[in-house]
Amino acid sequence: MTDIAAILTRIERAMAQETERGRVADYIPELGTVDPARFGIAAAMADGRVISAGDATLPFSIQSVSKVFALSLALGRLGDACWARVGREPSGDPFNSIVQLEADDGIPRNPLINAGAIVVSDILLAGRTPESAVTAILDFVRRAAEDEGIGIDTAVATSESDTGFRNRALAHFMRAAGNLDHDPEETLAVYFRQCAIAMSCEQLARAGRIFAFAGHTGPGSDALITPARARRINALMLTCGHYDGSGEFAFEVGLPGKSGVGGGILAIAPGKASVAVWSPGLNAVGNSRLGTMALEMLARETGWSVFGGV
Amino acid sequence: MTDIAAILTRIERAMAQETERGRVADYIPELGTVDPARFGIAAAMADGRVISAGDATLPFSIQSVSKVFALSLALGRLGDACWARVGREPSGDPFNSIVQLEADDGIPRNPLINAGAIVVSDILLAGRTPESAVTAILDFVRRAAEDEGIGIDTAVATSESDTGFRNRALAHFMRAAGNLDHDPEETLAVYFRQCAIAMSCEQLARAGRIFAFAGHTGPGSDALITPARARRINALMLTCGHYDGSGEFAFEVGLPGKSGVGGGILAIAPGKASVAVWSPGLNAVGNSRLGTMALEMLARETGWSVFGGV
Amino acid sequence: MTDIAAILTRIERAMAQETERGRVADYIPELGTVDPARFGIAAAMADGRVISAGDATLPFSIQSVSKVFALSLALGRLGDACWARVGREPSGDPFNSIVQLEADDGIPRNPLINAGAIVVSDILLAGRTPESAVTAILDFVRRAAEDEGIGIDTAVATSESDTGFRNRALAHFMRAAGNLDHDPEETLAVYFRQCAIAMSCEQLARAGRIFAFAGHTGPGSDALITPARARRINALMLTCGHYDGSGEFAFEVGLPGKSGVGGGILAIAPGKASVAVWSPGLNAVGNSRLGTMALEMLARETGWSVFGGV
Amino acid sequence: MTDIAAILTRIERAMAQETERGRVADYIPELGTVDPARFGIAAAMADGRVISAGDATLPFSIQSVSKVFALSLALGRLGDACWARVGREPSGDPFNSIVQLEADDGIPRNPLINAGAIVVSDILLAGRTPESAVTAILDFVRRAAEDEGIGIDTAVATSESDTGFRNRALAHFMRAAGNLDHDPEETLAVYFRQCAIAMSCEQLARAGRIFAFAGHTGPGSDALITPARARRINALMLTCGHYDGSGEFAFEVGLPGKSGVGGGILAIAPGKASVAVWSPGLNAVGNSRLGTMALEMLARETGWSVFGGV
Repeated sequence: MTDIAAILTRIERAMAQETERGRVADYIPELGTVDPARFGIAAAMADGRVISAGDATLPFSIQSVSKVFALSLALGRLGDACWARVGREPSGDPFNSIVQLEADDGIPRNPLINAGAIVVSDILLAGRTPESAVTAILDFVRRAAEDEGIGIDTAVATSESDTGFRNRALAHFMRAAGNLDHDPEETLAVYFRQCAIAMSCEQLARAGRIFAFAGHTGPGSDALITPARARRINALMLTCGHYDGSGEFAFEVGLPGKSGVGGGILAIAPGKASVAVWSPGLNAVGNSRLGTMALEMLARETGWSVFGGV
Repeated sequence: MTDIAAILTRIERAMAQETERGRVADYIPELGTVDPARFGIAAAMADGRVISAGDATLPFSIQSVSKVFALSLALGRLGDACWARVGREPSGDPFNSIVQLEADDGIPRNPLINAGAIVVSDILLAGRTPESAVTAILDFVRRAAEDEGIGIDTAVATSESDTGFRNRALAHFMRAAGNLDHDPEETLAVYFRQCAIAMSCEQLARAGRIFAFAGHTGPGSDALITPARARRINALMLTCGHYDGSGEFAFEVGLPGKSGVGGGILAIAPGKASVAVWSPGLNAVGNSRLGTMALEMLARETGWSVFGGV
Repeated sequence: MTDIAAILTRIERAMAQETERGRVADYIPELGTVDPARFGIAAAMADGRVISAGDATLPFSIQSVSKVFALSLALGRLGDACWARVGREPSGDPFNSIVQLEADDGIPRNPLINAGAIVVSDILLAGRTPESAVTAILDFVRRAAEDEGIGIDTAVATSESDTGFRNRALAHFMRAAGNLDHDPEETLAVYFRQCAIAMSCEQLARAGRIFAFAGHTGPGSDALITPARARRINALMLTCGHYDGSGEFAFEVGLPGKSGVGGGILAIAPGKASVAVWSPGLNAVGNSRLGTMALEMLARETGWSVFGGV
Repeated sequence: MTDIAAILTRIERAMAQETERGRVADYIPELGTVDPARFGIAAAMADGRVISAGDATLPFSIQSVSKVFALSLALGRLGDACWARVGREPSGDPFNSIVQLEADDGIPRNPLINAGAIVVSDILLAGRTPESAVTAILDFVRRAAEDEGIGIDTAVATSESDTGFRNRALAHFMRAAGNLDHDPEETLAVYFRQCAIAMSCEQLARAGRIFAFAGHTGPGSDALITPARARRINALMLTCGHYDGSGEFAFEVGLPGKSGVGGGILAIAPGKASVAVWSPGLNAVGNSRLGTMALEMLARETGWSVFGGV
């Protein structure tokens, strides 16, 4: 049997040796204050254990990783009708590109780029105030992680709202195209706060179990999402989870995953584990540099790639 | 144990009921003559068995499915140096788009779109005549399928060359950008003939075993490619194998796959099976309509999706 | 000597016969209420006469025609420093395209498309409130037309602001790129109200004299802009004044001109006349259908094309 | 009366002082051998005089300036039916862009970019051999210039054909889209040789008289093209004649013009003069650096801008 604890420890030590740690995102000013030396990793296993190494209990801003939870909730709410408003294809463009929206009449390519996630926020806002929509997302994440202590970093949310002109451009563009049902500022109020959810690696790994274990948080638990939906969200993570680094991540790591500019990545080994890694410095395409390296090492040592074992 | 023979038979019967079978590609005139009523499916299993149903021994033009074999050979020849000339990201564009080439200075987004496959042909042409490059590809496919009877449909190759203006545009564009080393007509002579390889579902399923079984054609056989390379080509098939229907295929089927406009699809269930399906009618994004439906049914009944079982 | 009065009368009569009058813009709801049967034309001549036919004293919403006056004022204020923030090339795209902005890092292609005009509004807002910036534009137009009665249609301005999501997308995008100095809502408050200036053909023809007569409103008057600037704004009108119908207008009419979705067009015959025409129905590229036809007829009958006489 | 001879001499002297002369095009190797110190200018006046300064009798490769003559001939042959195959709008893209072709289904934006001129070559090839099509263009240029000594630089034509991969990409793309009627290599045989026509400034200025003087080569001569066609080609030159520097040229010079990568520019002052200038060094957008400066100086000193006098 693979000794995950030993592997995670080896990974943590290897990453501590790395001097080139990437660049901490600073376009959201509040994110720029995070210590680039941090590194944490945690794996939630099929048997219920959560194994970790490094700064795995320190909360960080999950940012775009939140998109997979919001999407799960929206699919539960609206079902396949969601797909009339957002596509399922990789975009071939950076995370905040607006070009594609103009070519496709305001329909974002997939729900894991910013434009698509803003549509998901808009779906979750139907019949609710922004506050209650945010509460619904937060509750879902708490239930998935089985941890009521998860909250929102309001300083990050405010910083994000203050500087989120590009996301406002996306939202207003989609509103003009008829693909937002609410005032863009209300929709963005949901989106900015959802992105500011703060979680530790251990919490995030636990929350990700619903994707690894067919909707369940553990053996015998109720399913939060259906098995088919878990599988499909994994497919989206594989093809679209890392913006225009998605192909590279599939190629090198071979696991469905979703990254955030806070430096976190959630990776799913279906049936085996939900893994969360965090290191704030980013690579050129906006994904955690050490986080990606750590997951490459993990996939190599465990043989968990969905594309074939050793 | 899953009874694959029963499943394939059920699939074949279900597909026979379908009246909307898609449109046979006719932009290569010779392809347009194929009978749209044909349907075949075959699975090459880990234990060496090849199970099939329908028109599974009838040869068809594998067209773009050939790209994964040519890529395997080019990687064996040039190694990771290939990636300086072609990327690994989904394109978000149709199979023969030229827009992306202009934006990226003549570097195709991935080796499974036409432009990328033409670069692969150019790599295989180094130090060879077009004839010997084609022979090398054909030999590789024959070894993978363990079948010396596989050949090239020269009528299709000629038809393709006569009408391949769009591919000539791609080739000349890349030559202008310095990303082809040979006369575009020589490179295309390789490409057009590689696409015209004719195989039956049984032959194609057998050839695909190298991707399903870590480079091996069966238990105890020598590896034709390394396990890491098999895994990575599977990753490319998953993210890029169906042009701008790649996300959809991952979402609905959940297996690495590569389609061709001849109506064939090769799908890989790593460690479990290599599956080939053929039905000439295509859907709106250029993939076999019934072939895609058959693979959805197969994935559902077998639980082979790489993104999690039932 | 050309009898302009007779020509304008003939034009007005010819246009009255037209049954296919184009489609009144309704994306700004308030504009959709205008009577499509209206047609007016007026020419302000070098000798000070203003000659007109049809509904030439009825005010209409000048919309994008206002861009040439705002630009004149901004160039007077900031001089050639304006060109660091907006280009001088035709866009090859529709009036409200955002694609080009992404390719060019938030620098609009020219000041006569929406994005460019929003930058001009932002320049005019420096050190002022939106109210005083709007007042400055209105004062400039009044001085050019020598008519204090010109005002803003506040119902149109409100309607435009209520529905201007696409323009908000442009503004937020440019703000994100660092090419707006003010809160996008403040900049747009200037832009939306400037577009809602209401003028009659006679007033607009009089205002346009500064472009026809090297900055002057008439013989012996002070210049409002320099001759070089008048010439250059004419050049911009010729190359960029009708969005992606600019080439067509140059080809068929041969005069610098600027159209608005309210159905007005200002056309300049340098040294000879400033001409304003109004008919609310638009053609496929968003320019007044009858207005364009009327100006083609005018150019033909007068030989005023800048590209050569009969 | 303006003393053109004195102005041209002043311009020639001013240009001789310039040390930054731009970069000679070398993507066609044969063009790269031209002496960058050359400068010539010539004006063909309404009264029949041809006035010149500098290297005005030395032949150079007119390259894309040939496009206006080929277009004149094609319009004479096919009339307005030409416009079904090529547009009349500025492109907003570099001279050899292929992106626009994909967006517009193989219809080039205008006849003065490469793709559009290749369509014009294809029109001229109808019912002819490439040789006789080239002869027809050359004859037309000779008649316009009233000079039988004008010929083709075959070394340039060969060099252009040997390296013209980008133009081949354009041609094959348009063939694939159904917008070329002939084998792309035959069409390009016309195009490459038309571009290699060699003329001196004096010859080119004389040939351009048909655009300046409503189709006539001089007082009392027969018209080679109709006045309306001359006017419209002038309009195309103004909006599209300098690729993505067209707006800038209109803004600074204010005359219809067509540039070539050989360093020549033909500029038209309707009713007044046809002017040719030549200096081999190019600016960043591919137009003659000193040629553009010389025409700015000419426009300033003569007041010939079509957009208004001093």
